[in-house]
Amino acid sequence: MAAILPDLATQVLVPAAAVVGIAFAVVQWVLVSKVKMTAERRGGEGSPGAAAGKDGGAASEYLIEEEEGLNEHNVVEKCSEIQHAISEGATSFLFTEYKYVGLFMGIFAVLIFLFLGSVEGFSTKSQPCHYSKDRMCKPALANAIFSTVAFVLGAVTSLVSGFLGMKIATYANARTTLEARKGVGKAFITAFRSGAVMGFLLAASGLVVLYIAINLFGIYYGDDWEGLFEAITGYGLGGSSMALFGRVGGGIYTKAADVGADLVGKVERNIPEDDPRNPAVIADNVGDNVGDIAGMGSDLFGSYAESSCAALVVASISSFGINHEFTPMLYPLLISSVGIIACLITTLFATDFFEIKAVDEIEPALKKQLIISTVVMTVGIALVSWLGLPYSFTIFNFGAQKTVYNWQLFLCVAVGLWAGLIIGFVTEYYTSNAYSPVQDVADSCRTGAATNVIFGLALGYKSVIIPIFAIAFSIFLSFSLAAMYGVAVAALGMLSTIATGLAIDAYGPISDNAGGIAEMAGMSHRIRERTDALDAAGNTTAAIGKGFAIGSAALVSLALFGAFVSRAAISTVDVLTPKVFIGLIVGAMLPYWFSAMTMKSVGSAALKMVEEVRRQFNSIPGLMEGTTKPDYATCVKISTDASIKEMIPPGALVMLSPLIVGIFFGVETLSGLLAGALVSGVQIAISASNTGGAWDNAKKYIEAGASEHARTLGPKGSDCHKAAVIGDTIGDPLKDTSGPSLNILIKLMAVESLVFAPFFATHGGILFKWF
Amino acid sequence: MAAILPDLATQVLVPAAAVVGIAFAVVQWVLVSKVKMTAERRGGEGSPGAAAGKDGGAASEYLIEEEEGLNEHNVVEKCSEIQHAISEGATSFLFTEYKYVGLFMGIFAVLIFLFLGSVEGFSTKSQPCHYSKDRMCKPALANAIFSTVAFVLGAVTSLVSGFLGMKIATYANARTTLEARKGVGKAFITAFRSGAVMGFLLAASGLVVLYIAINLFGIYYGDDWEGLFEAITGYGLGGSSMALFGRVGGGIYTKAADVGADLVGKVERNIPEDDPRNPAVIADNVGDNVGDIAGMGSDLFGSYAESSCAALVVASISSFGINHEFTPMLYPLLISSVGIIACLITTLFATDFFEIKAVDEIEPALKKQLIISTVVMTVGIALVSWLGLPYSFTIFNFGAQKTVYNWQLFLCVAVGLWAGLIIGFVTEYYTSNAYSPVQDVADSCRTGAATNVIFGLALGYKSVIIPIFAIAFSIFLSFSLAAMYGVAVAALGMLSTIATGLAIDAYGPISDNAGGIAEMAGMSHRIRERTDALDAAGNTTAAIGKGFAIGSAALVSLALFGAFVSRAAISTVDVLTPKVFIGLIVGAMLPYWFSAMTMKSVGSAALKMVEEVRRQFNSIPGLMEGTTKPDYATCVKISTDASIKEMIPPGALVMLSPLIVGIFFGVETLSGLLAGALVSGVQIAISASNTGGAWDNAKKYIEAGASEHARTLGPKGSDCHKAAVIGDTIGDPLKDTSGPSLNILIKLMAVESLVFAPFFATHGGILFKWF
Repeated sequence: MAAILPDLATQVLVPAAAVVGIAFAVVQWVLVSKVKMTAERRGGEGSPGAAAGKDGGAASEYLIEEEEGLNEHNVVEKCSEIQHAISEGATSFLFTEYKYVGLFMGIFAVLIFLFLGSVEGFSTKSQPCHYSKDRMCKPALANAIFSTVAFVLGAVTSLVSGFLGMKIATYANARTTLEARKGVGKAFITAFRSGAVMGFLLAASGLVVLYIAINLFGIYYGDDWEGLFEAITGYGLGGSSMALFGRVGGGIYTKAADVGADLVGKVERNIPEDDPRNPAVIADNVGDNVGDIAGMGSDLFGSYAESSCAALVVASISSFGINHEFTPMLYPLLISSVGIIACLITTLFATDFFEIKAVDEIEPALKKQLIISTVVMTVGIALVSWLGLPYSFTIFNFGAQKTVYNWQLFLCVAVGLWAGLIIGFVTEYYTSNAYSPVQDVADSCRTGAATNVIFGLALGYKSVIIPIFAIAFSIFLSFSLAAMYGVAVAALGMLSTIATGLAIDAYGPISDNAGGIAEMAGMSHRIRERTDALDAAGNTTAAIGKGFAIGSAALVSLALFGAFVSRAAISTVDVLTPKVFIGLIVGAMLPYWFSAMTMKSVGSAALKMVEEVRRQFNSIPGLMEGTTKPDYATCVKISTDASIKEMIPPGALVMLSPLIVGIFFGVETLSGLLAGALVSGVQIAISASNTGGAWDNAKKYIEAGASEHARTLGPKGSDCHKAAVIGDTIGDPLKDTSGPSLNILIKLMAVESLVFAPFFATHGGILFKWF
Repeated sequence: MAAILPDLATQVLVPAAAVVGIAFAVVQWVLVSKVKMTAERRGGEGSPGAAAGKDGGAASEYLIEEEEGLNEHNVVEKCSEIQHAISEGATSFLFTEYKYVGLFMGIFAVLIFLFLGSVEGFSTKSQPCHYSKDRMCKPALANAIFSTVAFVLGAVTSLVSGFLGMKIATYANARTTLEARKGVGKAFITAFRSGAVMGFLLAASGLVVLYIAINLFGIYYGDDWEGLFEAITGYGLGGSSMALFGRVGGGIYTKAADVGADLVGKVERNIPEDDPRNPAVIADNVGDNVGDIAGMGSDLFGSYAESSCAALVVASISSFGINHEFTPMLYPLLISSVGIIACLITTLFATDFFEIKAVDEIEPALKKQLIISTVVMTVGIALVSWLGLPYSFTIFNFGAQKTVYNWQLFLCVAVGLWAGLIIGFVTEYYTSNAYSPVQDVADSCRTGAATNVIFGLALGYKSVIIPIFAIAFSIFLSFSLAAMYGVAVAALGMLSTIATGLAIDAYGPISDNAGGIAEMAGMSHRIRERTDALDAAGNTTAAIGKGFAIGSAALVSLALFGAFVSRAAISTVDVLTPKVFIGLIVGAMLPYWFSAMTMKSVGSAALKMVEEVRRQFNSIPGLMEGTTKPDYATCVKISTDASIKEMIPPGALVMLSPLIVGIFFGVETLSGLLAGALVSGVQIAISASNTGGAWDNAKKYIEAGASEHARTLGPKGSDCHKAAVIGDTIGDPLKDTSGPSLNILIKLMAVESLVFAPFFATHGGILFKWF
């Protein structure tokens, strides 16, 4: 029985969706670029009051509050200047980072080629296939070559995704600031549109590159789909390797600058956040763009690439793969294609169908994005599952064959999608200052920083419970219905609304930067209040984004792990064997080792930053008075050098652990290692990012003083507020460096094991062979 | 082939060793009691200088530094008064705690009886044995009755162990203070001897009760050793259940008081630690005795009981069990017996063979205890393995039989013992302020509390690495050599020096109390300095004790897990099945849930304490001036009420999780749950207790100002010191409440699953049966 959708339609639909996504991104960009960064703008459009009147019609009074007494020309010029400085700093850091990472990637590409090529001694002869012994498959050497090419392709796409994201964010930040003069609604739309540019570009480019790679590789591989999709997994490995360095390097950069700036500026000198007198302020704002934007973009691209690859490689040994049914084979790509369309519709709800009129509408608007995209996408999945799959098919289940119906696969994708929504909501509940958990943390600041930290840690631990149940339920359902293929498509389901997820996620750092620019440009208190409100919602969405990234990473890793086990020809991973158990316990330890490294790196880099900032305050006359400019460049250099140097050890730990374990201890211990790292890493990642998010918003809650309760804790500078600042600072490396890097750790180790599986299965476990 | 040691000799040796242990404890007690708590002492013994001269002979000058100008009579009386207050508070809390826990234990005992009795519908007919179908075994009803009796016995022994420990500690604390007047060496010996009383009493009573229970149960069971030792596992469950409440309740009590006292006293009012004007000071000192002494005593007793039970139940289905070879069967008890003798020899090195003459000799002396006990015990193990085991025998290995040689079993026990030593050393390295990790943390206080916390957390994460490798290596070796029996005896090996371990562990809180009493009795600065030096070493030994407890808990849990799997008749625990995997990921989450509860409990209880202490300072006139006494009793009541109320939810989580999972999801998911909780809990437990220990000692490092570097950070009251106090306060619940309770969580869930295994195997997994 074949799918309803003809193969030709699939061949057209997938690239078409990608093109639509890119076109939509371009349209959003054009709309953002209408906010002019030159001072002449005013003359052309008339007074901003009139402009708002034109746009909004019946917009209520407070939307068109215009800042009086501001020298328009000067402010715009100043914003533009700061924007340039940030953009330049970010570009120069990314280029430095890519230079080092490029070298590493080059070496790793050679390793991939050598290891995989050596499986059959670089022979060029075809071999019988693994799963259908009566057919001939391409030689291991071809796998080595194409895996290496796919690896490079994945790395480059990931790099471009991160870089473009950064470019867009640094283009949009000052524009958001300028729009904030017209009201919070305008600023929100600018920031959100810019996030959408990044989201759609990334989702579409990830899809289209994968699609092209499959078609090009297919020319050589022909009928050997098993070999083709095994080689394609290199794409996931490349994407994730790049993401690892992006996240870790960017995370260290941003938090060294942030912590260093806060410790001297806010705590010692009592000057506000983002004050232009603070020498580390530019580095801090650059950090948001290289860490939270470029790092996160690479990360989510990696997740997307890996979940697609995991699903494809499992499908290639199912009945579609063996019978060469093209449309069902590309089901994962069809899901992503429909996802782009669903997200496009969703975006319109934020930018066109509704309008933000007050500060307290921001969070609900972002939350609505999550709900709408999930609902629309559920319909989309049903459609794709009906049209793109045969009514029933068989998939490979660790040696056995399992019959699956199309509605069952619909359930697998849908459960992943809805589990993502639940994770999003739980994250919001624990990190938004609209609910009691964060308010309790803020309240605990009354008795000082110690209770704040105790309550914050407890909050993070507690926030793990429901997401883990949601993940466990998704795994159970999808695993039971369709084995590892089910888990892979559940991950894809969670990531199918990636464009919307990225849009609301990128919105956060853009708003954060906008606030920084407002402060540095000396704009009024009201503007800063508006950007702060955007930013507080941004902290929550950032935490939600991390929740998605971690949840999907758990599912993706399990799917990759399953694919690895199949490919390494192990039939069970029995905890009750010493080889597996030691892997399990050591694997569960790795996230701690990794976190120790990254936290210590941020700490040491921050100490260096503190010394430099103190030195400048002490040695540059007139700095505190604002008559002399600080030396921003030295601070940027400290962050750059520290992050480049410090990203190597944790990166090496993640990249080398599977290799060492696979080579010396073999595939059973490696299986244990992957399972241990997965189940332990997920918990730390969720708790770290929620704890950090909660502390940040507890601080913002006290600063904003929006409720009776909040006012009893504030104002800025009170003892409570100081305690909250300490919590926020501790949370910085947790939520932006070690936490989000952990999901890459678990995914990357899994995909690396999968790519190297043939080598480990043939030559691995030499320690046990010796004894 | 039989063992060299005749059965009769075993029947004599085991109780003889226990009697020797108890006699030794009594001797130590008598020696401690020679320090008189009445003021008349002086008249009888002449001047203290002369007394010291008599004792020490050529003791150098600084040993006999006598405090001049102190009104001897008043000080002794005051010490005695404070001692009474502490002892009374501790006794009254423990009675309240035992009342509630007793009720819970009663209900649980009924549950055990009902669940296990229902396995074969309360039938009184004998059944074919599980492992040798040709024999008849006693009915399930007998198992229900005897398991319940063993459960009660274990709970009572655990309770008595904790209670006696508390009594000894509150007897010794003031005596240590008084001896501190004569010099640090005398004070050290008093504190250490008291610790030894507790260590030997506990090790000996655990052994003797188990021995008697085996012999009494044996009268009914006769030839059915399988049934006998299965019923005996109830002993481990009882011990650990009691320990759970002791640790959690005591942990919340002590830290609520400690955090509350510090936050108002040290931070707000700027009065020293343990100042008698602080209303929470008595509660704080009571807390050390109920948490760190009674709780820890119950905990280690639980570990000891469980590892013995795990080894016995596995051995009962090995060739000794089936062929009824008594001596090899009791090999685990022989190991413990030899352990008592080895520890006795070791103790003499600290109390009689060497003498502490200066502050910096304390830590090395305690470290020597670890090394000596390990070396002596290695010889002991070799002896027991040679005499007590046949040259070769077979053990049960998940369905298969495995041949083991006696030297292999020696290796299993020895690897556990030496892994314990390594864990001890690593813990010392990361928590003692003699080494760079703690000094780095202290140094990070320069830039405030935030960097202190970041560095402390990173230190804790890092300190996990080597212990996990040590545990993994022990598991691999012992598992490979002798399957689960090997793992069980490795755990026993780690715990074989429990008497010494407990002695150096109990020494810590006794010294802590001694310091508190010195402060409250208004003794001079020098006395306080000496007790502080004892206490700093005590923080390290407490961390080492926790390291042992956690390491052994990991091994014990795995052994119990293995026994559970055998008894539940599962042959593999395959991670690649949905049932097991969801158990694994949810199990890895449980330690987070549990920690969230306990940390939040400490936080909330501390907030209440803070309010009360503030209220007293504000409303009692003359309190700050020291002319009026505070109302200590209300603070004691707050800690008592909070801990009784707050220990229920985490206790219920641990006790009910295996029951719920076993009943609704069945034995496979439960297996996953146990494995997940084990591999995740070990990491959090180690990192939490080391982070806390490091913060505490970083603070002490700054306070003591013993090095050039330390002096640049101090003195007390400097900004650095304030930042260090914040870290110390955060570490309190980590190191004394949630961290050490986690090892009970993993052990208890495993032993509970083992006891209920027949029920789960028969009636469990109803959810999956329905669908």
